[in-house]
Amino acid sequence: MLQTPERGFAPSEYEQRAQRAQQAMELAGMDALLLTTHADIFYFSGFLTQFWQSPTRPWFLLIPQSGKPVAVIPTIGVECMQRTWLNDIRSWSSPNEHDDGMGLLISTIKELCGASPNLAVPMGHETYLRLPLNSIMQLQKAFATNTPWLDATQLIRDVRAIKSEHEIDKIRYACSIASNAFARVPSYDLAGRNEIDLFRQFKISCLELGADECAYLVGASGPDGYTDVISPATGRQLRAGDIFILDTGCVWDGYHCDFDRNFAVGRASDAATSAYQTLWDATQQGIESIKPGVSCADLFQVMMNAMAGADGGSVGRIGHGLGIDLTEPPSLTSYDTTVLKTGMVMTLEPGLNYGNGLTMVHEENIVIRDSGAELLSVRAAQQLPICQRI
Amino acid sequence: MLQTPERGFAPSEYEQRAQRAQQAMELAGMDALLLTTHADIFYFSGFLTQFWQSPTRPWFLLIPQSGKPVAVIPTIGVECMQRTWLNDIRSWSSPNEHDDGMGLLISTIKELCGASPNLAVPMGHETYLRLPLNSIMQLQKAFATNTPWLDATQLIRDVRAIKSEHEIDKIRYACSIASNAFARVPSYDLAGRNEIDLFRQFKISCLELGADECAYLVGASGPDGYTDVISPATGRQLRAGDIFILDTGCVWDGYHCDFDRNFAVGRASDAATSAYQTLWDATQQGIESIKPGVSCADLFQVMMNAMAGADGGSVGRIGHGLGIDLTEPPSLTSYDTTVLKTGMVMTLEPGLNYGNGLTMVHEENIVIRDSGAELLSVRAAQQLPICQRI
Repeated sequence: MLQTPERGFAPSEYEQRAQRAQQAMELAGMDALLLTTHADIFYFSGFLTQFWQSPTRPWFLLIPQSGKPVAVIPTIGVECMQRTWLNDIRSWSSPNEHDDGMGLLISTIKELCGASPNLAVPMGHETYLRLPLNSIMQLQKAFATNTPWLDATQLIRDVRAIKSEHEIDKIRYACSIASNAFARVPSYDLAGRNEIDLFRQFKISCLELGADECAYLVGASGPDGYTDVISPATGRQLRAGDIFILDTGCVWDGYHCDFDRNFAVGRASDAATSAYQTLWDATQQGIESIKPGVSCADLFQVMMNAMAGADGGSVGRIGHGLGIDLTEPPSLTSYDTTVLKTGMVMTLEPGLNYGNGLTMVHEENIVIRDSGAELLSVRAAQQLPICQRI
Repeated sequence: MLQTPERGFAPSEYEQRAQRAQQAMELAGMDALLLTTHADIFYFSGFLTQFWQSPTRPWFLLIPQSGKPVAVIPTIGVECMQRTWLNDIRSWSSPNEHDDGMGLLISTIKELCGASPNLAVPMGHETYLRLPLNSIMQLQKAFATNTPWLDATQLIRDVRAIKSEHEIDKIRYACSIASNAFARVPSYDLAGRNEIDLFRQFKISCLELGADECAYLVGASGPDGYTDVISPATGRQLRAGDIFILDTGCVWDGYHCDFDRNFAVGRASDAATSAYQTLWDATQQGIESIKPGVSCADLFQVMMNAMAGADGGSVGRIGHGLGIDLTEPPSLTSYDTTVLKTGMVMTLEPGLNYGNGLTMVHEENIVIRDSGAELLSVRAAQQLPICQRI
């Protein structure tokens, strides 16, 4: 078991994050960056709360051209935000009938950047603004009439994609918890158990082993294989001859792991064994091909070539970035030419179809180092593990 | 322990949901309703997956003026969506470099509603559109140039606010799991344990007792009381004389409970005991005042009057709707004149400040019946419970 990392980050780490953003903002002529989602706000402030699960209230973080970010948030979050490195925290009582934060946000932007700022927001693929459309239109009326907003999508991607050693420590720790939980699965007694029981037992294992949350757990089971990897657990009873997959995003101190493991119940067919072997090999070739300078498209091609002859499925990609979000840019696709850089944390997730409509996915988490890939997940067994207690 | 309800809903329940929306759409002159969030899409389709935690891909559900909703979703979700009552499921391979679903969405809208439909989206308080701003602008260019979009916020609120008996069964079941988990807390051994340990043990209790997720757990502890109710657990060690709160949103089959419980460690001061009593009484008066026809503002006033003389805090409201989302409209505030109707599920959540900057919140979940309030949570003990194992 790894040593437990420290929770939180030093203020200097947040300073560096803000400075990296501000340097890019200056080059792009952005006066302020407006952020509205948990991941972006947590990244730049350290504001960590499950309260985001309540969709009621909007939350805002402004990154000015210099200095610390400024929070414009509901009163209920002030104390939690005061524990971060921020100084300038403005609040309103929310929910609010007439003005749910927009007046305060607009006046704050004007105070920080003047009446016609070059305002930037993430607006491209894989982003959204977490505030009502009416509020977006009100903001556009206040600020975008003469000066169209600038797109901060790539800027945020670039800043967040390169993880610090402290971020990597947290992801590695989340991965180690999930790896230890997966190691318990072959000893589970599956007799008379259904998918819901299995998922519940796995979540308890993750918590017992130190996860803050086992917030994400999807998977499936079926005779000789499964057909879908995003559905919730069902009442389907596990039987000898089944293959099942558990795909988890355990969270530790706000950072995710995201990898899966496949298991056979009692016995495995040649088809399932072979599919597993193909995916293990493809992942291995992917891992070994990694070094800084290789692109996502290159890595995609290495793994697809390793599966030549197999039906590679159509979920859109075979890996992605990982960190505060369960899935982050970039994507391992034929078209994503993002170059892998030291400090990027990625999932490798090749999948293939086999048999009569069955599918299998295999996944590892890695961090890019100067010397190549460092595994964060404990590498899956080279042979499909078999659960004997059925 | 309650009997476990059935998972899922009969197609007739989804038909009724769609028809209620469609009747309101007709009155409002809406040709199609465009939905983009987990809660709205789950409500009208039954599409349930934790995959929403991945922010990468947009998902769309269109409700036409008549007939079943139409899904426009990434390929990876097709199989899961095929298990719902929907027939018309259209998909694209996502993520996608050039067109991440907008082409397919726009052509589907045109096919269903013509080139100039009266398109409605939720755009008011407590909503957001879960797709990139660039995509929103593309949609506006395609459809909102001549015909401004209609606001579906109130329509969706009204339809979702009245729960069916099957929805209530699920919320009641989630409440019973959390109630049983809270009942275990006084027997926890807290000696040498910190908040993180306590939260983890409580989550395991919820899972052991049948929760699908203990997705939401916030709380705090402190000498004689706590100061904040949305922060995550910390490494703060529990000591005799502490008060702590656990506020949980356990999930069962996609439906939440949302209530909290306070506990004293070893002993409780008069101030904490008195604060607890005031909140318990205010909640009780609130519960007893409920009948159809009473408004949220009325209920707010009853509880605030019951706390007259106390400092009622400033979190913006003292209760809210509950269901698929942890927090739903309406809100128990001075200004929310929503009339309580049979079938609405609500939290009552009065809070007050006491001592030197301390705060306390008390919460129950209820459903509005013709005869008054039916408790869904097991009513909190009338005296502040004391954990003796410290």
